[in-house]
Amino acid sequence: MSDAWFTLRWQDGAVVMLDQRRLPAEETYLTLTSVEEVACAIEDLAVRGAPAIGCAAALGMALAARESRAHSGTELHADLASAAERLARTRPTAVNLFWALGRMRSVADRVCSGDDVEAARGELLAEAENLVEQDVAVCRALGDAGVEIVCDGARVLTHCNAGALATAGWGTALGVVRSAVAAGRRVEVLADETRPFLQGARLTAWELARDRIPVTVITDNMAGHLMARGEVDLVVVGADRIAANGDVANKIGTYPVALLAREHGIPFYVAAPLSTIDLDTADGSEIPIEERGSAEVTHLAGQALIPEGVPVRHPAFDVTPARLVSGIVTERGIARAPYAETLRSLFTPG
Amino acid sequence: MSDAWFTLRWQDGAVVMLDQRRLPAEETYLTLTSVEEVACAIEDLAVRGAPAIGCAAALGMALAARESRAHSGTELHADLASAAERLARTRPTAVNLFWALGRMRSVADRVCSGDDVEAARGELLAEAENLVEQDVAVCRALGDAGVEIVCDGARVLTHCNAGALATAGWGTALGVVRSAVAAGRRVEVLADETRPFLQGARLTAWELARDRIPVTVITDNMAGHLMARGEVDLVVVGADRIAANGDVANKIGTYPVALLAREHGIPFYVAAPLSTIDLDTADGSEIPIEERGSAEVTHLAGQALIPEGVPVRHPAFDVTPARLVSGIVTERGIARAPYAETLRSLFTPG
Repeated sequence: MSDAWFTLRWQDGAVVMLDQRRLPAEETYLTLTSVEEVACAIEDLAVRGAPAIGCAAALGMALAARESRAHSGTELHADLASAAERLARTRPTAVNLFWALGRMRSVADRVCSGDDVEAARGELLAEAENLVEQDVAVCRALGDAGVEIVCDGARVLTHCNAGALATAGWGTALGVVRSAVAAGRRVEVLADETRPFLQGARLTAWELARDRIPVTVITDNMAGHLMARGEVDLVVVGADRIAANGDVANKIGTYPVALLAREHGIPFYVAAPLSTIDLDTADGSEIPIEERGSAEVTHLAGQALIPEGVPVRHPAFDVTPARLVSGIVTERGIARAPYAETLRSLFTPG
Repeated sequence: MSDAWFTLRWQDGAVVMLDQRRLPAEETYLTLTSVEEVACAIEDLAVRGAPAIGCAAALGMALAARESRAHSGTELHADLASAAERLARTRPTAVNLFWALGRMRSVADRVCSGDDVEAARGELLAEAENLVEQDVAVCRALGDAGVEIVCDGARVLTHCNAGALATAGWGTALGVVRSAVAAGRRVEVLADETRPFLQGARLTAWELARDRIPVTVITDNMAGHLMARGEVDLVVVGADRIAANGDVANKIGTYPVALLAREHGIPFYVAAPLSTIDLDTADGSEIPIEERGSAEVTHLAGQALIPEGVPVRHPAFDVTPARLVSGIVTERGIARAPYAETLRSLFTPG
């Protein structure tokens, strides 16, 4: 991965993140100095992708501690609880958000027991930066674990952006691609453009082109035709939440790709860290699916695509049933069916 | 259908057509006075939709006769042959184009045998106008034949625009919807936006809203989610070419919709006139699939969606295998499997 850019990090007392709404036209970084700004950045998709949302929320909690005018541990704890509630309201589907907030709240519970507010701030920041660093390491580990599914010369279809931009670095689905390339495999990526927000056309294409990994963009509705013509060898996507039974919530349009892959005998893999697996959610029907506002569907580049007054729908995610998933690539190896057993065992290794 | 607009017609010695590239923002009519202008209008998608392309080509041939400086039947016949060749090169997939040109060439063969060039011009124009009129009548007949597949309260998903705008009027898939509404059925239409050219978002939404038929637009990748949630009762689409075995070439993205419909037990119907059925093409593998230029995928509203230099693909159609098609609604009734028999018998009724 090029070192010239980064997804998000703590810098000089602020959260600095690449504004993904402006890619690929502009490479602009936002400097956020309040938890409210971080929450808005998540809501407005300046940062997106389940692991990156988790990282942003953790850094947001460190910022909340810095912003707080608390003079006691109790006051700081209350401010942090309020910050966590605000961040938890941003987006409902990606479980990494709640996982990261849970980690930060655990630290808050511990460090706010005393009244050394400054020390508590330091510990919260250390935890957030640790979570961000771990995210990159986890992505590299899961990418390496996924190399075995990528043949030399593979034409890999992916949907949305599950890349370095969706994580603190390296990526999940694109982490598998990067690890395969690092292992000497020749790989070509087919990127679904991913309407309405065009994460594939704008973000996946951008980061792969920066890494000189061959990428071709298609509209979402072309995947079936290319699969029928034998032009796809493998599908790898990310995930926003994986239920205990292996059902996968991911960007809207993932499920049709999975169904097409099964029809054409093409392996369909999901790449995600353990922080995306939610053992408390029994199956996909329990995963809350965010319905976003209509403007992302009705307008593009300020132009109306649809006659005024015509309603649209905007579910941002869909659920791919576990039976369509060939395997789930994690930092602890590849889980395969029966997922109810294999996913749980990932959390109690050895 | 509202009388305030029309798709295309002969008017004052010219071909006048609604410029579909500018909808829904502007309702502008083009006045075309040469066969070259008609050919360019077809290539650039000012007019599109298999039956409408056939009508435009027929009117273009009448225009070629009018443009011709021929003084003899032989000279006129040569000019018409050259015009037909130009029009035939515009778009390869929709068979209605070749069917309409075939009808016009048959008339040319007959009327150019003498040297009354002006009478020949009149006969060619009469044939073209007759073909356009018949197109509306055929759409009404197939729409009426399709009413039986539409339950009261049906939520009908369609892909692309197979409406009045894709024909001389009434429409094919939307002709079925209009006939069902005329028969008193309550119908709600879900329109796939249909990237890259957005025929669903721009055109289907526009013409249904004009007719006050409830329509909601979704991105192409949302159909699977809505079907899984039980929010779709029926799929009806048009066709650009139907092979003798019932394989259907239609706008890119139709095949995934058909596969999803089968997975969820939702009837998937194709509505098309007999002029779309090509008994000379044995199956879908023989249908030429147009690959269009990249600009329609890479740019929208003048803005680049994709990083510069990243390649795209642009197959404009895909093939839905006959086994996924519940029925083909034509002006002579609904054909069902085995299509190799039922489609052929449509052409030899009684």
